[in-house]
Amino acid sequence: MSGGAYRAAGVDIDAQDEALGEVKGLVRSTLTDGVLSELGAFGGLFRLPSGLRQPILVASADGVGTKLRVAQLADDYSTVGQCLVNHCVNDILVQGAEPLFFLDYVGAGILAPDKVIELVRGVAAGCRDNGCALLGGETAEMPGFYQPGDYELAGFIVGVVEQERLLGPDRVTAGDVLIGLPSSGLHTNGYSLARHVLFEVLGLEVGDRLPVSGDERTVGAALLEVHRTYLPALRPLLSHPGLHALAHITGGGLTDNLPRVLPATCGAAVDRSSWVPEGLFGLLQEAGGVDPEEMFRVFNMGVGMVAVVESNAVEGVVSTLEEQGESPWVLGRVEADRRGVRYEA
Amino acid sequence: MSGGAYRAAGVDIDAQDEALGEVKGLVRSTLTDGVLSELGAFGGLFRLPSGLRQPILVASADGVGTKLRVAQLADDYSTVGQCLVNHCVNDILVQGAEPLFFLDYVGAGILAPDKVIELVRGVAAGCRDNGCALLGGETAEMPGFYQPGDYELAGFIVGVVEQERLLGPDRVTAGDVLIGLPSSGLHTNGYSLARHVLFEVLGLEVGDRLPVSGDERTVGAALLEVHRTYLPALRPLLSHPGLHALAHITGGGLTDNLPRVLPATCGAAVDRSSWVPEGLFGLLQEAGGVDPEEMFRVFNMGVGMVAVVESNAVEGVVSTLEEQGESPWVLGRVEADRRGVRYEA
Repeated sequence: MSGGAYRAAGVDIDAQDEALGEVKGLVRSTLTDGVLSELGAFGGLFRLPSGLRQPILVASADGVGTKLRVAQLADDYSTVGQCLVNHCVNDILVQGAEPLFFLDYVGAGILAPDKVIELVRGVAAGCRDNGCALLGGETAEMPGFYQPGDYELAGFIVGVVEQERLLGPDRVTAGDVLIGLPSSGLHTNGYSLARHVLFEVLGLEVGDRLPVSGDERTVGAALLEVHRTYLPALRPLLSHPGLHALAHITGGGLTDNLPRVLPATCGAAVDRSSWVPEGLFGLLQEAGGVDPEEMFRVFNMGVGMVAVVESNAVEGVVSTLEEQGESPWVLGRVEADRRGVRYEA
Repeated sequence: MSGGAYRAAGVDIDAQDEALGEVKGLVRSTLTDGVLSELGAFGGLFRLPSGLRQPILVASADGVGTKLRVAQLADDYSTVGQCLVNHCVNDILVQGAEPLFFLDYVGAGILAPDKVIELVRGVAAGCRDNGCALLGGETAEMPGFYQPGDYELAGFIVGVVEQERLLGPDRVTAGDVLIGLPSSGLHTNGYSLARHVLFEVLGLEVGDRLPVSGDERTVGAALLEVHRTYLPALRPLLSHPGLHALAHITGGGLTDNLPRVLPATCGAAVDRSSWVPEGLFGLLQEAGGVDPEEMFRVFNMGVGMVAVVESNAVEGVVSTLEEQGESPWVLGRVEADRRGVRYEA
């Protein structure tokens, strides 16, 4: 029998099994001490690290948006998996959590095994980079549901933090200082607008050189830069009492994401002259005729993570970040009796 | 400004915000004691139940396959969310775990807010039914990536089990008895083949009456039956020493899923005369010209969950299940010195 009628309906169980074999090897490369389950079990098993007094689990789900389309156009599926893991790692890092495990979901019409493997290779690399086990996942072949070549990639992460080390608005007070860390390009947000400007307004293709002076990358390479992880840079600071909050600058930009980690009575003042966004942002703004205000809501504008730090701890935090190879910027400060973000300069 | 250029590129942030508002109310309806986070935080926060000696986290990711297409054809998005949660609950239940929290991912080209809300309403209902918090999720609007009306729905669950109460192959021995629990239709597997047979071979539409004697349902209603949860029926047995393993009968059917919970030296003998699959399965087999062997690999054939039980505990387990309103069947037994599933009759 071997799936004859099922294959006629578009599902190739043997091809799935073959891809799953390779995927299992990639999964194995990410295993950490906590993982108890055999591959192939219904659910993945994970033992919490010992020695935690009041462990709080922190979980997040995400995708990488239409960056998937750029990967498809460039026929390069190697980076979006890393982007996905790093995005999720950053989303729980902002609450002080270190990652424990990750699960992925890949949907497609017909699974092209080489593409699935490239996607999962990226996911596995991202997991290894962050010391996070790839505990499970689902690859769903849904014939007739996706257009040929189309696919979806979603991810789920679980991390842990001691309750007393939770970061967030409760710790933040007026006078705290905003320290920005550089992004690696667009990360995973604003791709619908970026694609519109680059491919439709400017008529560029993925293989074309980016029309930005001094930038040697192709459009595809610039758009597929890996959304970086901030875990290695920030891990040494997670137990620092002067670190009050972290904001991951994703969809909504600085404008919407900074207020998420401020108390309701406070706003943020950001000095736009304190850093220079890379040329790609200027190109998108100019060619797309996009208002500066909208740029700061759609794109990260070169700032992928903001640390909210007690004013007398700034020097120490900055020097710790520099020891990790970072180039942090002091962007501004937290202000009392207002809300939202006020941009200066 | 308010997203002018971004909207021109196809992303409507205000419409998203409106849907998110309704979604937040649904999320609130699922909150349990463990949930610490405010809605809108980057990651969801969950405190483990106290009193666990050696807690093992059990996690799973899944989708509902092309059942999504049936929901689309029938313009009824109310059940697939429940199917997704119940599927995930069952997948961790088989390792003895009770659910803690769930996260969902909804992808679409343009998010039609009413459909998103209906999807999430189903997810929230499923979470409430299983005492599981909807801790977070992502709704991704990806213009140009999905065809109009198309969408994706994936879910992720985390539960917990005491290490000493983990179920699985280690506990199973030859002579154990297989007890089946009825499925509620196709659950979430075999929809590509079922759609092919019903819509293409038979030329039926979702509003047509199912051509099965004594079955009053439309094709759409039969295909959209909620994938049931087995948690309420099995919860009283999770600490029963005679319950050795559970197999959730999903893609791969009894043929592929039973062996996943047997030791490598054992196989299963299943007496096909011990239960009668509902008429829909016979229709699919006959009209599709599908081999019986393939039927048992693609569909659950009326058995959604199998309990592997110590022979001298069968009577007690069956009577506990009957007290929960179940109609369990004794399907067969575990046999030594062979592998796979052997069907009798």
